Amino acid sequence: MSGDRVSGACGECLARTWLIARLAGSIEIARHQRRRLREILALSNEKLIAGLAGVRASQICDELERLDVDDLREATDRAGLEAVCRHDAAYPARLSDLVDAPAALFVAGGVERLVAMAGGDLEDGPRAVAVVGTRRASPDGLEVATSLGRGLAAAGVTVVSGMALGVDSAAHAGAVVTSGRTIAVLAGGADVPYPRTKARLYERIAEHGCVVGELPPGFVAMRWCFPARNRIIAALAHMTVVVEAARRSGSLITAEIAADLGRDVGAIPGPVTAWRSAGTNALVRDGATLIRHASDALDLAVGIDSREPALPHLPVRLRDLLGEVADGRDTLAALTRSPRDVHPTLAALTELELLGHLRRAAGGRYVVVPP
Amino acid sequence: MSGDRVSGACGECLARTWLIARLAGSIEIARHQRRRLREILALSNEKLIAGLAGVRASQICDELERLDVDDLREATDRAGLEAVCRHDAAYPARLSDLVDAPAALFVAGGVERLVAMAGGDLEDGPRAVAVVGTRRASPDGLEVATSLGRGLAAAGVTVVSGMALGVDSAAHAGAVVTSGRTIAVLAGGADVPYPRTKARLYERIAEHGCVVGELPPGFVAMRWCFPARNRIIAALAHMTVVVEAARRSGSLITAEIAADLGRDVGAIPGPVTAWRSAGTNALVRDGATLIRHASDALDLAVGIDSREPALPHLPVRLRDLLGEVADGRDTLAALTRSPRDVHPTLAALTELELLGHLRRAAGGRYVVVPP
Repeated sequence: MSGDRVSGACGECLARTWLIARLAGSIEIARHQRRRLREILALSNEKLIAGLAGVRASQICDELERLDVDDLREATDRAGLEAVCRHDAAYPARLSDLVDAPAALFVAGGVERLVAMAGGDLEDGPRAVAVVGTRRASPDGLEVATSLGRGLAAAGVTVVSGMALGVDSAAHAGAVVTSGRTIAVLAGGADVPYPRTKARLYERIAEHGCVVGELPPGFVAMRWCFPARNRIIAALAHMTVVVEAARRSGSLITAEIAADLGRDVGAIPGPVTAWRSAGTNALVRDGATLIRHASDALDLAVGIDSREPALPHLPVRLRDLLGEVADGRDTLAALTRSPRDVHPTLAALTELELLGHLRRAAGGRYVVVPP
Repeated sequence: MSGDRVSGACGECLARTWLIARLAGSIEIARHQRRRLREILALSNEKLIAGLAGVRASQICDELERLDVDDLREATDRAGLEAVCRHDAAYPARLSDLVDAPAALFVAGGVERLVAMAGGDLEDGPRAVAVVGTRRASPDGLEVATSLGRGLAAAGVTVVSGMALGVDSAAHAGAVVTSGRTIAVLAGGADVPYPRTKARLYERIAEHGCVVGELPPGFVAMRWCFPARNRIIAALAHMTVVVEAARRSGSLITAEIAADLGRDVGAIPGPVTAWRSAGTNALVRDGATLIRHASDALDLAVGIDSREPALPHLPVRLRDLLGEVADGRDTLAALTRSPRDVHPTLAALTELELLGHLRRAAGGRYVVVPP
């Protein structure tokens, strides 16, 4: 069953994945019934089917019996994904702390890279911090999330998030620009860039980091998949840091799961008058660690010395670049103090592009996107 | 020595006060030598004098010997102040937790009121919370400070602060409007409104609460008096809440002294990108309680149920009043939903006046002060 490949997903786990996707429309949870969702996802295949009404159950049983897992493997290949299941040595052991651990993960960017970035258990495996928060982040929140992503990745820590608009994407963007150590956990298939507007970020993450999902290739996320996805984010990371969050926010689910798993929880404080800080300030009041910048997270949760991360200080302020149109290395060098500064400037341009402030046009030129 | 009056200051303590004022010019501390100041203030009269150079010491000894304490008592009367010393039953026992407790306090508003608002020890005496912060507060910070002052005072808690520009005055103003339960601790004489621009607030505090100082009437504060004053603020209160503070801020001294005394310390969080929050966020990271509003402070530090404080919700938004010119109760009633709402509206107008947004003109009319 466990297979002798370095990575792979066994037939049982692929069938499980198929079953969850097949039942997707039946899985319904009210906002206050998050616990119920986790109970559902922890059920065995038999119990999942037993929960359905008679005729439907026997139909799904038949389909499951006739299922050709090689078809699923081929579909995975065709989608450019790799798969790894919980019976495989490459499956991140840290996910097994979840009672409802995903049976399999589909990975864009490769299982090998997933292992290098978040494989093994927490004690011995690579260090990871989840950075999550509201989709409707403030400019301040976006800046803090990007800077956290940058600082953590620069220190060799993997940045885990959900690629959602706002805080999540900003954190990934910061990491992609720096070292690429980042994992995006999608609620749907790992081959389906979601949200669509982050397709370019998706490509960059798949190129330098990983995009993972527990549902089969092509699966379009339904509402329940988002809170379910959050448990994977929490379980992959040593610590979950919430950047901005309203009182009732998906990222607080992630923080709660992290706490339940005994992982560290951190939160960026904010004005007591802002709705975006209501969730994070409440977390700190309830015992989460107050985080101000990457060093704070490195310091306390990941056990890395709090000296400034290795990333060189950007020689030009990102915003100052917005007025310029750069069309090559020479122009960039002229914009900066010395040729040595070109690399961070390119990084800054890429960051601005990922954040949607710049768009790359023909001839390698950049065009400023109006806010 | 202790006297048989309900309140009063004995000759020894008045002489002590005179001596400190006499030596004021000799007391010099560098910013990093705050501990040294506290050691100086804990010295006996003899040791204080012994610390001076020979000729000057004998001159001051002579003056001290010839000192007529009745002159000091008369000066106190003339300034409209009352005095209480540490040998008096009315002296707030909670101040005795300080190794360098002030020998005497001069009080505008009356010693009886001081006793009612912060007399006795912490366990049995009236509850008090210090609200302090930067002079250069943000509009948000001012709003939070005012609202804290209002919420605490409405719940019967005394609001202690230093009447400085910014956070301090805003906290006093909130308390004055509500129930008047507030104590301003001045660095100079309690009869010298400082800063001058807060003279109107001074009057209101002296009318409904207390203004106190450890230095004799007429004394103009020198630089060292401000950190010294902070120890009195911290010692009078069950908890010190810092609203906004830079990394190196006088209000952090107050918080530190409060912590040293074993009192609770709270802080209002703020954006990690704002200098005004650097001090408060650091406090929370170091273990201070995160405070969002008065209920949080009442809840944790003062042991009062966190249900909303008794103050009725203001029926009109303060800012909405700024466009109006009210000239009497009838007009006010027309502005609000019902005659029952007149009182909070008057309170709101007074608050706006204390905050400097309105000025009272002839005929009881209000004039809007341009920002």
